[in-house]
Order: sequence, then structure tokens, then C-alpha cells
Amino acid sequence: MNFASDNWAGAHPAIAQRLLDEAAGFAAPYGASALDRQIEQRFNEIFEHEVAVFFVSTGTAANSLALAAINRPGGVSFCHREAHMLEDECGAPEFFTHGARLAPVDGTLGKIDPQHLKTEIQRFPPNFIHAGQPMAISITQATEIGTLYKPDEISAIAEIARHYALPLHMDGARFANALASLQLSPTAMTRQLGVDIVSFGGTKNGCWCAEALVFMQPAMAKELPYIRKRAAQLFSKSRFIAAQFDAYFENGLWLELARHANSMASLLQNGLRQCQNARLAWQPEANEVFCIMHKNHAEALQQQGAVFYLWNPPRSPNDLLQANEVLVRLVTSFATTMAQVEQFLELVG
Amino acid sequence: MNFASDNWAGAHPAIAQRLLDEAAGFAAPYGASALDRQIEQRFNEIFEHEVAVFFVSTGTAANSLALAAINRPGGVSFCHREAHMLEDECGAPEFFTHGARLAPVDGTLGKIDPQHLKTEIQRFPPNFIHAGQPMAISITQATEIGTLYKPDEISAIAEIARHYALPLHMDGARFANALASLQLSPTAMTRQLGVDIVSFGGTKNGCWCAEALVFMQPAMAKELPYIRKRAAQLFSKSRFIAAQFDAYFENGLWLELARHANSMASLLQNGLRQCQNARLAWQPEANEVFCIMHKNHAEALQQQGAVFYLWNPPRSPNDLLQANEVLVRLVTSFATTMAQVEQFLELVG
Amino acid sequence: MNFASDNWAGAHPAIAQRLLDEAAGFAAPYGASALDRQIEQRFNEIFEHEVAVFFVSTGTAANSLALAAINRPGGVSFCHREAHMLEDECGAPEFFTHGARLAPVDGTLGKIDPQHLKTEIQRFPPNFIHAGQPMAISITQATEIGTLYKPDEISAIAEIARHYALPLHMDGARFANALASLQLSPTAMTRQLGVDIVSFGGTKNGCWCAEALVFMQPAMAKELPYIRKRAAQLFSKSRFIAAQFDAYFENGLWLELARHANSMASLLQNGLRQCQNARLAWQPEANEVFCIMHKNHAEALQQQGAVFYLWNPPRSPNDLLQANEVLVRLVTSFATTMAQVEQFLELVG
Amino acid sequence: MNFASDNWAGAHPAIAQRLLDEAAGFAAPYGASALDRQIEQRFNEIFEHEVAVFFVSTGTAANSLALAAINRPGGVSFCHREAHMLEDECGAPEFFTHGARLAPVDGTLGKIDPQHLKTEIQRFPPNFIHAGQPMAISITQATEIGTLYKPDEISAIAEIARHYALPLHMDGARFANALASLQLSPTAMTRQLGVDIVSFGGTKNGCWCAEALVFMQPAMAKELPYIRKRAAQLFSKSRFIAAQFDAYFENGLWLELARHANSMASLLQNGLRQCQNARLAWQPEANEVFCIMHKNHAEALQQQGAVFYLWNPPRSPNDLLQANEVLVRLVTSFATTMAQVEQFLELVG
Repeated sequence: MNFASDNWAGAHPAIAQRLLDEAAGFAAPYGASALDRQIEQRFNEIFEHEVAVFFVSTGTAANSLALAAINRPGGVSFCHREAHMLEDECGAPEFFTHGARLAPVDGTLGKIDPQHLKTEIQRFPPNFIHAGQPMAISITQATEIGTLYKPDEISAIAEIARHYALPLHMDGARFANALASLQLSPTAMTRQLGVDIVSFGGTKNGCWCAEALVFMQPAMAKELPYIRKRAAQLFSKSRFIAAQFDAYFENGLWLELARHANSMASLLQNGLRQCQNARLAWQPEANEVFCIMHKNHAEALQQQGAVFYLWNPPRSPNDLLQANEVLVRLVTSFATTMAQVEQFLELVG
Repeated sequence: MNFASDNWAGAHPAIAQRLLDEAAGFAAPYGASALDRQIEQRFNEIFEHEVAVFFVSTGTAANSLALAAINRPGGVSFCHREAHMLEDECGAPEFFTHGARLAPVDGTLGKIDPQHLKTEIQRFPPNFIHAGQPMAISITQATEIGTLYKPDEISAIAEIARHYALPLHMDGARFANALASLQLSPTAMTRQLGVDIVSFGGTKNGCWCAEALVFMQPAMAKELPYIRKRAAQLFSKSRFIAAQFDAYFENGLWLELARHANSMASLLQNGLRQCQNARLAWQPEANEVFCIMHKNHAEALQQQGAVFYLWNPPRSPNDLLQANEVLVRLVTSFATTMAQVEQFLELVG
Repeated sequence: MNFASDNWAGAHPAIAQRLLDEAAGFAAPYGASALDRQIEQRFNEIFEHEVAVFFVSTGTAANSLALAAINRPGGVSFCHREAHMLEDECGAPEFFTHGARLAPVDGTLGKIDPQHLKTEIQRFPPNFIHAGQPMAISITQATEIGTLYKPDEISAIAEIARHYALPLHMDGARFANALASLQLSPTAMTRQLGVDIVSFGGTKNGCWCAEALVFMQPAMAKELPYIRKRAAQLFSKSRFIAAQFDAYFENGLWLELARHANSMASLLQNGLRQCQNARLAWQPEANEVFCIMHKNHAEALQQQGAVFYLWNPPRSPNDLLQANEVLVRLVTSFATTMAQVEQFLELVG
Repeated sequence: MNFASDNWAGAHPAIAQRLLDEAAGFAAPYGASALDRQIEQRFNEIFEHEVAVFFVSTGTAANSLALAAINRPGGVSFCHREAHMLEDECGAPEFFTHGARLAPVDGTLGKIDPQHLKTEIQRFPPNFIHAGQPMAISITQATEIGTLYKPDEISAIAEIARHYALPLHMDGARFANALASLQLSPTAMTRQLGVDIVSFGGTKNGCWCAEALVFMQPAMAKELPYIRKRAAQLFSKSRFIAAQFDAYFENGLWLELARHANSMASLLQNGLRQCQNARLAWQPEANEVFCIMHKNHAEALQQQGAVFYLWNPPRSPNDLLQANEVLVRLVTSFATTMAQVEQFLELVG
């Protein structure tokens, strides 16, 4: 009953097998192999356009190098107050941009509120150098709390991005889960709506280490080869990343895995609705379910073998929890089984 | 006939299989799994002392974070003029130290000359802030040109390091090859001689991605957990690195692979001594062989399927090559076969 | 009628004259002159303790190098949401710390609320590397909105700093104004309360360029000579900064100038209390007065020759202004005259 | 008899007086005053073209921000092996560029040898990301050893810069001395020859703190306002820098002061040619004279009150000094008098 995070799972057998198959032979390192090139081409197909793709080691690297690519002195990037890059990356985005700031933007359900976004951007009047200058907007899809930006919500933010001439980045650590839930194509969820850069995560969805940074406009990534190498993020045996993506994309495995994870989350949420001892914190939309229970009960569940994290409640609304209640995060993955979910639900009661 | 580099090889079957075996199940991410802990303990055994170990994605990351751990403002690190960190890491060491400089030191056969080292360090008088301040010495073992520091040579440099209170770093991208050739234990080649930090490479010797940064004195690495995370080098599914090291160390596989690579290099060098059309540039001591031939002949070999790089000749001696001659680098690895070597030697003639 | 800022004023005649007197002769550069040493000694006397003093070119430099001196990877410094270093330094503090973050803390009247401070610090549990780590607390005295931390308020924050082992920094761009208003000695407002580092500003109070970074514990500044030089903040003719401080401190000129500025602010606030067309936003305590008026009236005043800035209202309380009202900032300085104040008050009406 | 450096002198009386005159009144800070604008216009006239001008606090700041403006990831700037930015700025250029490297280029008489320059640039093949990428060339005029690039020498380097599409920077800490000696106009020594950026120093030539960073193509400085502010180099009372330049330029004072310093150097060198106990190291061309003498004699001179520095001899030729000889640097300035020179020469004997 492990719901701690989708990165507690291992690797999907097909992906693990593909890694094994790739072990033999010789190939050009540093992204120059035939397989690397082939997967780059695959990304073009996925986004239905020529994109620039860079494999990196972690999602934090993808997010940080995305900002590094569009960095400006005194730059300020706008993201949701609970964004992973702001809360959980130990200052990596600031480090790789030599101090460009992340400005938190409020919004319910883990999503940037366009009105708040505008207000925050307007705190940086053009040419008022003391304040610094806006440089990017970043959204997370699926969000850190398991919700989704709907296409029109992305469009609304993209319009603001365009208005202020800011690149729009999407942290897609759970990109496939979002796609599967919204039943959109990759390009329909990004490029067609005005997203410029995607941190395309494979690790949480069944790879062991496969993260790609994707630029919709290759010109925006002109310096990225140097930025990535200088960031110590250029794998010598890069083809093993490519191999993972190869299996990941084959026959739509990635979407299948995401659909599975999402369906396990649905099962969880449906079950929780029936539980006496817990209630959903909000409507889950991808592969993360947040529920509220008494803290004693949460501890009891953990002692009985359920693995999950307690989560900081969002700053607003601030009345989500009653006394002695805790917010429980439950993450499902390709490796979650129906049996695990049912066992957990039974324990919750 | 691929002698381009040891990172053109794939992964050794035992290591690849171990990755496959690790695919199932759940485990704590970010280095907290039982396997991660177990491999950390394994490093303690290997270095016969409690060390601090950090897995990172690339050798460049290991070198750069080593310097970041001991960083000083205006810092200057001394390394050989042909050191990888100076020549081939796109400024990563400088980037991760916010601009600490790498000062090139001369020395024949790819090794720092202790006299030159002293002279260079003395260019930075204590408290003369304009020049900056010494902060580290780094040596590469095996060196970038396939030679080895003998224990007394390391000691001589370590003594200078101690005298100036500078940490001594070893770039061990080909650590196992050096060990195997010198028939020394890891601790006898490092800690016992005064080496403080090792970039412990596994990738070039049969892993697909396994690099560890090892501190002989854990206190020196106090901030490294934050430095690594901020550097976007903390793998979520870190146990897959651990798994590679697990297989790598099992039954001395790592040394066996290194011995194989070294023996293939011996075969190459012995063969080249018999060749009419090439001569050894210097005596190889690990798994890299450098030879000199007419550039037309090198091109012909490449057209016949031999894969290798031409190498910049060292700055001194500057009369190594005669007109129209080129310096050819031949790297062997765990994957090199006797047949490949023989076929190549035959072609050289 | 210039109330735009205290940095619109020039230099006090005594300070300007002292600069002129210093013009002749030769002296050791880079802070090594007899005069530099003498002024360093003067700072020891002022703080009644051996301190480490560094002259820098701007207040932003002082704040940024203060944080650089105590920098930690993934570091987070806590300051008030409206702090100058957060709002008006174009990311310099983040730049000089390679991306250490400034975390905004709420509090009324421009002052950090100790409860909020604790809450924010607790968002960074020890050893939870994803979030980063606390590294400093910074308060501004006098605050950006002309209020003052009382000694017990500083003590309350210092206690939190001690509890979490965080250095406490004071941005003293208007240090003298605070001293004069509180009628405290420099050491009673800082060292005795637990302040570790002071950005000691002279520029806004009658110097043309005299900023000092003062460390109460010289050991904390061990690397500062290198940090300052690397920051391009080491003046060759440093003695001209020293000369300004020499005149500044002579016969208590600095406190006299601050008292004058404060008294002009008192005059302003007393006058404004009588005005029909404006009301005080809050009680001024140093040399800045904030008042609220109809925006048409503010514009009319500007057209009539009054020079001042409109200010962003604090985020809380958010009902400070009524429709069409603006917040007007009025800053007095050593150069403000009673006539200017009276003329302005008359215009306000 | 102070020949230690031109930054041991104070400020010229006319400049000191101009500072005093500026002390009164109010003016817009941060470079927005009428006087700031007027001096910017003055720079346009001096360079006979619209340039972008930025006042900064030190020569190190000017050099560092010049490189920051044209920074590239993995960037490498080429400068002479004895360049101030490489030898005497404590890593500031690397710090402000987040680790871009300075590559030393050899050349006799303190000047980059164009052939060596080409060789060094060619060590960075296009798109070979491991090595990094060229980003700038920097020359110092007058050089650190008191010699001068002749116009055709600058042209030769500018041609290489153009060929490799690299901006050409000139460190003009002693710009006026070079101009005066070569009898060239500012534009004839820079823009017309292909120099793109000038660190325009006033401090060493009679100001107390007046350094300007000048871009021949304003578009190259597009981000500089933010870069400068983020670097904590934007003076609030910037008009006092402007005031110094105002007096500096008035009636050609700057060139007059430089001519005086140069003529004192001529007097020194002519005198030294007659001395038994010293010989010129090379032909001085601006306001620095280097001579060679027995180290005992140098010490004796210092004991008799002569103030000067011993200098590291250039790395080549390496036979400049005989046993027990030292290289003595003598710098003249606007404040050097004929009497001082004559007294010194007499002592040398």
C-alpha cells in the first residue's frame, strides 16, 4: 500500500527490458547516437512540429535549465505559490539563473489565478530597474495537488504571457497523467495553447530516469547545448535515456501507464467518498488524491503499513482542516494495483 | 573496431541485469532506500573508513560539486594543463563555484609537476586579495593521456596540498583502471596518500550511469546534500544508481572489467610496437593508448571502419609530431575484444 | 519642496569640504591608508566593541555582501514583505548569493511579525533538503515606511534568530535616523540586542557615497575581503569614503543631521494632521511621512512643484485607500528646510 | 617620491572643487539627473557617435560588467597573460559572468600576439560544446606594463575579433595616458579600429572615483541597466560621478593630466638611462616605467623613502633578470612632480 509518491515505484518492465537490450554494442556518446537522434525525431512527431529536445537527469534540472535558457538579469518568473520549483527544488531554479527570482502567485486548487497573475506582473513596471523585470510564467500540469488546468485556463494564462512577451513554461513532471485525463494530444495541451517550453517527465510514469526539456521554438534553445553541458547534465551514455523514451512511447505505453495511474486514483477517490473516516480535500483530476482525516487515524494507517505523506495544507483556503485533522496525499502510479487501493480503503474505513 | 572512448560502450550484462532486477517494487526515493544505504556502506568498506558518498549523474557533476563543496571566494584550483575539468567540461567547475578559477599547471606525461605546482601556488601570496586565493589541487587518475601517478608522485602533491592547507581532489573517471594497473587498494591510492575527495567513476567502466562523489572526511561534505539538490543532481530513483554499483562491486567485477580494458590496451601497445606505420606517443599505463601516424594513414584507417579520435598534442614537448603526423587516441574498455584489437593492428600494419 | 527621497539631496558642506581637504597627497589604496584604519577604529568605538568594517559603494552592495558572507546552498533569508532588498534591489541579494532566496514575512507597519516569522522558518524543517535551509533574518531600521522597531521588538526577533541559529542582519540605510529617534546608542540598538550585521548607511544622511558593512563578530567576515573584491566593491581611493565618514562622525554631525531630518518629518506630520486634504497613513517615527490624499490632489501638488513619489500601499491592511486615493511618500533629509515643509503644507491645505 | 601606483594620488584640485560645488541642492538619483544626462551626451561627443555609458564604482566593475553584458554559457574571453582582469581582480570577471573563463594569451611587451590569439581561439572549434565557446577578446590600453598597442596592432586584433564574431573590449584604466601618448582621438583609438566596449577609467588620472563603461553599439548594452543594478553598482547620488567627469573633461583637463603623467615617466626613463645602478626593462610608452636593479639596491631605495612595488617579471622572456635582480615598477600620475623624479633618480645613482 505505497502511495507516497510516483517516484517510489521502480521501472515498468518494458522500459527495464529496453534498457537491458540497449546494453550491448557501441554508440556515439553525448546525445549523438542514432537512437538519440531517433527519439528527438519522435518528439517532433509527438508535438507535431519541429521542437528542440534535451535529455537531463531530473525534473529539477529540466525546470532550472528551462529558466536558464530564457534568463534575464533581475529576472522574475511567476509560478503558483505551491509550485514544485518554488517549494521543493532547494533553490535550483534560482541557482541556475544566477539569482532570478520566483514570484509566488495565488490561485485556488493549485492553479495560477489569471487576475492575480496580472496583478503580480504589474508590480514590475517596464524600465523600473529597481524591481527587476518579468522573465517567464510557469505552470505545472498536472498541478502539485493533482488538479488540472483546462485548455481554456491555459489559454487565459498564455494570453497574459503573450501580452507581456513572457515565455510560458509548463512543468510536466506528470505530463502524461494530465494528457490522459484531459484526453488531449501533447500539442493540443501545449503548443496550440501557447506553451513555449515543457519539462517533459518520464521518471514518475514508469521510467527510471528519463526527463526531457522541450522547446517549441528551437531558436529559444540556441544556447541550451552549452547551458546543459555547463550544468553537468549531458549524459555520456545518453542513449540509455533515449532507450527509455523509446519503450515509453512505443505503442502508446506512456499514455497507457498514465491512464492506469489515473484510474487507480479514481478508484481511490470513489472509495474515499464512501469512507466514514476521511473526506476528499478537493476533486482529484489526475493521479494524486488528497484527503483529510484525523491525525490519529493517519498515524494508525501508517502503522498498519500504508505509506503516504502528510502534506502542508494550501495557504488558502485556510480553513480546510479542523482541529487535529491532517491533509493526506495519496499518489498512484503505473505500479499501483487495485488490490493495494482496496486494502487501503478498507483500512481507512 | 571502436576505440573512440570508453563511454561509447554500453553497459556490462551483469550491471544491465541488475538494473532489470531492480525494476519492481517500491522504495524510498532521493537516496533514502535500503539499497542506497547499503551501497554507501559498501563505499565505507572500499575506502576502509567512514566516507561521505553522493551519487551524481556525470563525471563533470562529480568534479564540479567536489569544488563547490570546498569553494572560496576568489578561489583558484590547480590542475594539470590538460585536465578534463579544464579542457572538456564547458566551464562547469567554474559555474558551480560561481567563478572560482582553474589554474593550469604544467608537467610531462599528463601529470602535474610538483615544482611547477609550488611555483603556481606561490603566485597567490597570503592575503593578497587582488590575486584571489588557492582553494584546491586536483589530479586525474588515470590521467587524460593514459598515464598514472605512482604512489610517491601522489604523495609529493599531497604534501604540497597539506603545506598550503589545500584539499586534494582526484578525478577518478578511470579510477578502476588506475587501481588495476597499479595493483593498489582504493584506500592505498587515495586516503593513505592524502587524497581528500574522489570523483569515483563507474560509467566508463561498464555502468551506464554511475558516478559517485566520495569525501574521505565527511565533515568536508556537510553542505553537499544541499549543494547536490540545488545542482539538480539528486535522482529521485537513486536506487538505480545504487543497483549499478551493487553489481559493479559484486565479486570484484569492477576490477575485473578494468583489468580487461587495461589488458586490451597492453595488447594494442605491444602490437603497435611492431607496426611500421605508427609509433607510440608515450608508454600507456591504463586503458588509453596514444600513437602517432601520418594523417593520411589515420584517415584511411577510419575509412576502413576504425573508430577513434585525433587528439590535440600536449603543449609540451612541442616536437612530438613531425609534419603531417597526427596523434591518435585509442581507448579500450570492458567491451573491447581481442579480435577488435587484432583487426585494428592488422589494418595499421 | 523636494520630498522624493533622501538620496535626492547632495552632500553636507562639512562632508564635501572634508573630501576637498583629502584631495592632496598620496596614500595607500584599497583600504590600507592611515585614514581608512583610523575610521575602522572609529567604528569600533561607535559599536563599543571590535567590529569588522568594509566600505562599499551602495546600500544594495552592503545588503548583498552581508548575505554573501553567511551564504548557504539552498539558503533562505527572511525579511519583511516590503523590505528594500526584496522590492528594490533588482535581485542583487540573490545574485551575490548565487540564488539564495528572500522569503517575505508579513507584519504590520513595515515590521516583521515574530509569529509570522516563526511560521515561515518552520516551513523549512531541518534536513528536508528539498525546501532549502534558513540562513538569515534581515530587518530594516528605520523601516521602508518610516516606522521603527523598538528595542523589545528587535529582541523578540533576535531571540528567534538565536533559536534557529540564524544571523540577524539590519539594513541600516537610515540607521542614524532610527538612532536619533529612539535615542539609543548604536550598540544599544544592535549588538546588545543580538544584531550580528549592519548595513551602515551614510549616503542618505549627508554623504555622497559612504556605506559600510559592519560585522559585530569579525570571524563572521573572514572571507569578506575576498567577497568584496570579487564583487568589484573595493575602492582604490578608499580613503575618500573614510574621509566622508570622518566628517560624518566628527562632533556627532551624523546624529545632528538625522535629528534635523526627523524633526522636519515631525513638522510635516504635525502639519498634515491639520490639513483637510490629506491624512496620515500611519504614525511616522523617523524621516519618512506617508499620507493619503485624492489622486487629483497629489497630481495638482506635483504640478505646483512638490516632488514626491506615490507608493505602493502595503498588502495588508488592504483597505488603507479609498477609491481614487493614493499613498504619498514624503522623505525629509539633512537638506530639508522648514520653509520647504511649510510651503508644502500650505499647498496641501 | 611615491611611484607605487597612480591610485595612490588623491584627486586633482579642479575635480575636488567640482565635487564641492555639486554638494548643494536636490537632483534625481540613480543616473537620472540633468548632469548625468549631460555627461552621457559628453561621451557621445568624445566618441563622435551615440554610445551607451554607465558609471560604475571601480575598474574591476567596468571590466566585469563589460563581460557580463556579452556573456555566454561556457564562454571564454581571451586576454593577455598579464592582464589586470586575469591577475588582479580576484575572479570578479568570472564571478559576474557565472564562471565564464579568461584564457591567457601570450605576447611580448604586455600585448596579445595575434598569432597566439588565433591559435588559442582555434582551440574552441564551433559546436564542440565540451570546450566551451569563445565570447570576447580584451586588450588593455595602456597595457599593464606601460606599453601601448599601436593602431595597426589594435586593428590586427579587431580583425580577428570580427572574423570570429567576438566583441572586442578595451580595459582603459589608463585610457587617457594612451591617448595622450599616441596623440589619437578617443574614437580613433577605439571605435574606428573596431573596439566595441571600453572600460573608461578616470580614477587613476585625477578623479577620486569615476569609472565609465562605454558601449560603442548601444544595442549591446540593452540589459546593462539591470546588470548594473543587480551588481549593486548603481550609485544613488550618481551625479557626483558625473560631476567628476564634468571637471575631468572641461578644457581638456583629462588629457593635460595624462600628458603630465606621461612626461614625468619620460623624465624618469631618460634619467634611468643615465643611471649606473638600474636599467630599463623595456621602453616605456605611457606613465609606467619598469626598471631592473639589484634587490639590495631596491631595498635601500625604499628605506630612503622611495615608494614603489616590485613586480612579477613577465613569463617570457624568462631571462630578463639576472641573479639577485628585481623588477621595479614606477608609476607616475597627475600628482607626480619633477622634484620627486629628480630626487628619485639621484638616489638611484
